[in-house]
Amino acid sequence: MQDLRIGIIGVGVMGADHAERVVRRISGARLVAVSDPDLPRANALAESLSRPAGIAEQTGAANGSGAIRVIGDPLDLIADAQVDAVIIASPGFAHAEQLMACLEHAKPVLCEKPLTMDTESSLRVVEAEHKLGKQLIQVGFMRRFDPEYAALKELLDSGELGRTLLLHNVHRNKTVPDTFRSEMIVRDSLVHEVDVARWLFDDEIAKITVHAPKPTGLVANGALDPQFAILEMASGAIADVEVFVNFQVGYEVRCEAVAEKGSATIGLGVDVLTKRAGQWGGVVPEDYRARFGTAYDIEVQRWVDATRRGEIDGPSAWDGYAAAAVCTAGIQSLQEGRPVEVEMARKSEVLG
Amino acid sequence: MQDLRIGIIGVGVMGADHAERVVRRISGARLVAVSDPDLPRANALAESLSRPAGIAEQTGAANGSGAIRVIGDPLDLIADAQVDAVIIASPGFAHAEQLMACLEHAKPVLCEKPLTMDTESSLRVVEAEHKLGKQLIQVGFMRRFDPEYAALKELLDSGELGRTLLLHNVHRNKTVPDTFRSEMIVRDSLVHEVDVARWLFDDEIAKITVHAPKPTGLVANGALDPQFAILEMASGAIADVEVFVNFQVGYEVRCEAVAEKGSATIGLGVDVLTKRAGQWGGVVPEDYRARFGTAYDIEVQRWVDATRRGEIDGPSAWDGYAAAAVCTAGIQSLQEGRPVEVEMARKSEVLG
Amino acid sequence: MQDLRIGIIGVGVMGADHAERVVRRISGARLVAVSDPDLPRANALAESLSRPAGIAEQTGAANGSGAIRVIGDPLDLIADAQVDAVIIASPGFAHAEQLMACLEHAKPVLCEKPLTMDTESSLRVVEAEHKLGKQLIQVGFMRRFDPEYAALKELLDSGELGRTLLLHNVHRNKTVPDTFRSEMIVRDSLVHEVDVARWLFDDEIAKITVHAPKPTGLVANGALDPQFAILEMASGAIADVEVFVNFQVGYEVRCEAVAEKGSATIGLGVDVLTKRAGQWGGVVPEDYRARFGTAYDIEVQRWVDATRRGEIDGPSAWDGYAAAAVCTAGIQSLQEGRPVEVEMARKSEVLG
Amino acid sequence: MQDLRIGIIGVGVMGADHAERVVRRISGARLVAVSDPDLPRANALAESLSRPAGIAEQTGAANGSGAIRVIGDPLDLIADAQVDAVIIASPGFAHAEQLMACLEHAKPVLCEKPLTMDTESSLRVVEAEHKLGKQLIQVGFMRRFDPEYAALKELLDSGELGRTLLLHNVHRNKTVPDTFRSEMIVRDSLVHEVDVARWLFDDEIAKITVHAPKPTGLVANGALDPQFAILEMASGAIADVEVFVNFQVGYEVRCEAVAEKGSATIGLGVDVLTKRAGQWGGVVPEDYRARFGTAYDIEVQRWVDATRRGEIDGPSAWDGYAAAAVCTAGIQSLQEGRPVEVEMARKSEVLG
Repeated sequence: MQDLRIGIIGVGVMGADHAERVVRRISGARLVAVSDPDLPRANALAESLSRPAGIAEQTGAANGSGAIRVIGDPLDLIADAQVDAVIIASPGFAHAEQLMACLEHAKPVLCEKPLTMDTESSLRVVEAEHKLGKQLIQVGFMRRFDPEYAALKELLDSGELGRTLLLHNVHRNKTVPDTFRSEMIVRDSLVHEVDVARWLFDDEIAKITVHAPKPTGLVANGALDPQFAILEMASGAIADVEVFVNFQVGYEVRCEAVAEKGSATIGLGVDVLTKRAGQWGGVVPEDYRARFGTAYDIEVQRWVDATRRGEIDGPSAWDGYAAAAVCTAGIQSLQEGRPVEVEMARKSEVLG
Repeated sequence: MQDLRIGIIGVGVMGADHAERVVRRISGARLVAVSDPDLPRANALAESLSRPAGIAEQTGAANGSGAIRVIGDPLDLIADAQVDAVIIASPGFAHAEQLMACLEHAKPVLCEKPLTMDTESSLRVVEAEHKLGKQLIQVGFMRRFDPEYAALKELLDSGELGRTLLLHNVHRNKTVPDTFRSEMIVRDSLVHEVDVARWLFDDEIAKITVHAPKPTGLVANGALDPQFAILEMASGAIADVEVFVNFQVGYEVRCEAVAEKGSATIGLGVDVLTKRAGQWGGVVPEDYRARFGTAYDIEVQRWVDATRRGEIDGPSAWDGYAAAAVCTAGIQSLQEGRPVEVEMARKSEVLG
Repeated sequence: MQDLRIGIIGVGVMGADHAERVVRRISGARLVAVSDPDLPRANALAESLSRPAGIAEQTGAANGSGAIRVIGDPLDLIADAQVDAVIIASPGFAHAEQLMACLEHAKPVLCEKPLTMDTESSLRVVEAEHKLGKQLIQVGFMRRFDPEYAALKELLDSGELGRTLLLHNVHRNKTVPDTFRSEMIVRDSLVHEVDVARWLFDDEIAKITVHAPKPTGLVANGALDPQFAILEMASGAIADVEVFVNFQVGYEVRCEAVAEKGSATIGLGVDVLTKRAGQWGGVVPEDYRARFGTAYDIEVQRWVDATRRGEIDGPSAWDGYAAAAVCTAGIQSLQEGRPVEVEMARKSEVLG
Repeated sequence: MQDLRIGIIGVGVMGADHAERVVRRISGARLVAVSDPDLPRANALAESLSRPAGIAEQTGAANGSGAIRVIGDPLDLIADAQVDAVIIASPGFAHAEQLMACLEHAKPVLCEKPLTMDTESSLRVVEAEHKLGKQLIQVGFMRRFDPEYAALKELLDSGELGRTLLLHNVHRNKTVPDTFRSEMIVRDSLVHEVDVARWLFDDEIAKITVHAPKPTGLVANGALDPQFAILEMASGAIADVEVFVNFQVGYEVRCEAVAEKGSATIGLGVDVLTKRAGQWGGVVPEDYRARFGTAYDIEVQRWVDATRRGEIDGPSAWDGYAAAAVCTAGIQSLQEGRPVEVEMARKSEVLG
């Protein structure tokens, strides 16, 4: 099966991040085109990602079987016959038109949130896709893919804690640009927890209250920040959300689910912290895969990248030899019940 | 640039894990061949990985431009012209011969630890590679690639905590097979911490003492488990290691470095926990990339996999529409200072 | 100075707890009288606390210079000339009359919350005390005395985190009796966080909203449990409170303060957990007093109690001898750089 | 029963701490005498503790029925007829003579560690007490009284985790005076873990190895710091101890017990952290007593102290009234499903 050929629209922070992801870490896909009103930015990105990982400067071959093209008009990118699928990371106001174009060309699309800027245009997109008779649009509510959120969802759905009653959410950014105003806190930040509440409760939101406490003094543009929202679900459950986009400290996202027989919290850095039956705690992994799975991924990706450059980027044969020498002495110590000196050749004598 | 064509020798737990990694998650590489004395196992793995991710049964096209071959003799795999690079995940006693073959054919190789079973054969491998004048061998000391260990190394090397004085290591497995005996605890388990100590101290180990306290009663084969090792570095620093391979609880690996002006611990589930200047704690990430980087990788990999199958595997346009409706009501609530009902079309009316 | 002679009204769970506290752990006070409508309960308590700590049965002397009297009518207890001060732990509906009696007799009183059952009677108590020209009443909002809450208050008042913007509170009980109904969740549970919000913000509450999400199925009496309250302060700050009195898991109280430059949370079991300037964490104590202060208090209290009974209740001289023998060997090991056997007399030979 | 009349020998840091403890927080005891070679220090302490708590300057009555006497010769203090029991907090070299005097006068004594400075003199003390036929000496191994250590002991003794195999101990001080040399690290610091190992294993120590890694550069006096000790128990179990008395960061004491079916760690700030059967975590308390027991003790002790001074030192009647007003509005909000304004009298109008 051929690799999926991807075009990315918008290469700001989010789009550039996706571009690097597709080129460097995603299997079965190639980045073939990018589009951005800021052409120099698009060109620079395309060029840097056409070089192998870890090589700062190189004239020759691109990564993948061809270079990444820069296409001025996003609608041309969508229509391009060499583009199999599209990632939309442009500003929200551009989404509606670009999504409609993707539907028209029957291109699968991963669209960063929000889907569109208002309810009506979002509904039109839904209806247009429905008319096609085939789902092509995925929205970038990425928390559903976070291992902690996914584990929380699984735990709640298992029914082990009984029915879920409350969700407490915290969503904090270090700072945002001055252009980020009160409404954007709802539409661009709170929107993540809106999806989290719908997804975890598997229910629609019936009523919303957004409280604006006296705002922080550390924001220049008069934005109402922080905000505190109450989401009342159709079933009667409640989710609350603190959104604070000028928290100064850093980035922090948490979610605590309170159920009839216990609670579960994510975002503390220790996976899912549960409280039930008189105990608080979490799960000790069965084996190395849960603990070191990411380390192995990184090891092999870096080894592949280095090998393609003709290099080594990790522990060498000498490191393997030194470990063998120590373990041999260790086994002797274990057998004889005493300290044992490690005998090794000198590195300089062996490797010159 | 062409994808790196990889052959894997040994498809037990570790090798099968690497095979799936290369096929499903590593960019720039293809798995083209596997070899294992257990032929049915090798065939089953090759077949299952030749199907697109998430497809249980399918007759047609393989993932990548060709199927994964099963090659009976590992030396044939190494010699095969279609194999650019080799991953060795066979039992340790087979490593020496396979590594020598890799060197002979000038194939880059990622070799699971141990390099070989004894000091002498390891030295011969080092010398053979040195004679080639080019490093081809990387040893699978994967802790160096774990983000927590890497952050610990960076912190210690920064000198911020002063000179490192002590390392306390804990290495625990839930259980091991009965064939896992006292010497293997040293050679296959302790060996990881041997490399950790050499790497973190950037120094060789001069003396080793392996203590065998009265063993757990929960191991049938008479193995001396747990073991407690003292590694004395050439510089005079000390690392201690508890290895306990029948801990019953699960998998646990920790490392605490004690330095002149503070300590740093990993393996607690909260990245690097430091103590310095009257404070304990860790780092709050700057932005979403540290917190949700893996979630984005999973989102895009699953979207690519689903798209190649012609499917959607994530939040739909409807989810985007529902979020837009809630946010619109939320902005109204914020502006009017009161609860607002969410107005939405019925899903059944729109999607039929 | 004479010990303070205390009378306690109400010896249910809370009152009995206070009684034991005064007798066993409080310096400078004696319990001289208790009163409770349940006379057998009052008698049993008075008798058990008149015996020295740790003695189950004893005929003779009481703890302190006299036995604890049981007085039927709480107003008689208040009026009693031998009672210097009163602790009220009776049901809330009895508080108003008992407080007025304390004021009448000019007796200092520590009154468990709530002060009284409604706003009007509470105001009358305040006015009556004000007319006396001397404060005699302290209300049992004990969180102000919790070391974690006190440290949080001190941190917020220091201004280090900027102005406090939000408080998130959680207040959970394992279960409550069937008699505990919806209004009591407000008046007896939420009331603690009402005081916490007033105290931490140093401000009055201007508006309150109590949300009742769909209740847990694990409560028989139809109580609206959990509840979620929003307290809007006069200054515009907001405190939210989850109260859940049938949480099943156990007892849990938390408070997170969100300020302009960081956050601080208590109730996680690690004192005050702060987030500021890119760091999360807490304080490492300067010396043993913060870590082991309570241990020393317990050691000395148990030594005093045992000594008054003519006994030993801790490490003996033999334990001191054994430690000396080990340390002597340890110093030799340190000096000679080798393991040293510990030489000790046999316990049976020395102690017979 | 009369209060126990206590004399304290040595009022350095530890002795002064004990003195304050006896006077301010211990029930059933009075401090009647102190002795110290530094007479001005002893006089200052006696004077300050003869005043009620919280009163900086006062001419009149002492706390308790008499002032605290200063007795020059510690042996006179021991012999004094007004002293029922003795706390020895003098330097270790003075302990042997003072303990013998306590035995001679049949005075119960709580002696700070070490019992004496060497094995022989310790044995003589043990034998002298044994000859008396009555235990009078308790040694200040206070960790046995720490709630965390006590809970760890209880867990290990329960057999729930199987047999204990290993203890990992960490004992760190911020800094120590220059007079604190290598041997004192063993005799005054390590001695605590020597007792911990004997107590938790309920076994004697058969062999000890004290490793001295290359020492920290941040100690001027050439002391071997940190040290790392291996204690081999008679039964074959092993305890290891890091002692680091110039850690710079602060005070830290930890103990991890590794048993056949799990591990338990204290000193992390979260009581006993256990790992067993695939889970890590701890216990959620049943009710408020475990969480807020200390807060209640402090509340009542401060109320007693303030009441004896004729003052209030906590939430006032006004605080009770304000809480009542908020709760009344809260109940109305709960019943009517809407925000409710809080109606309260103005403080200035009521309290003038």
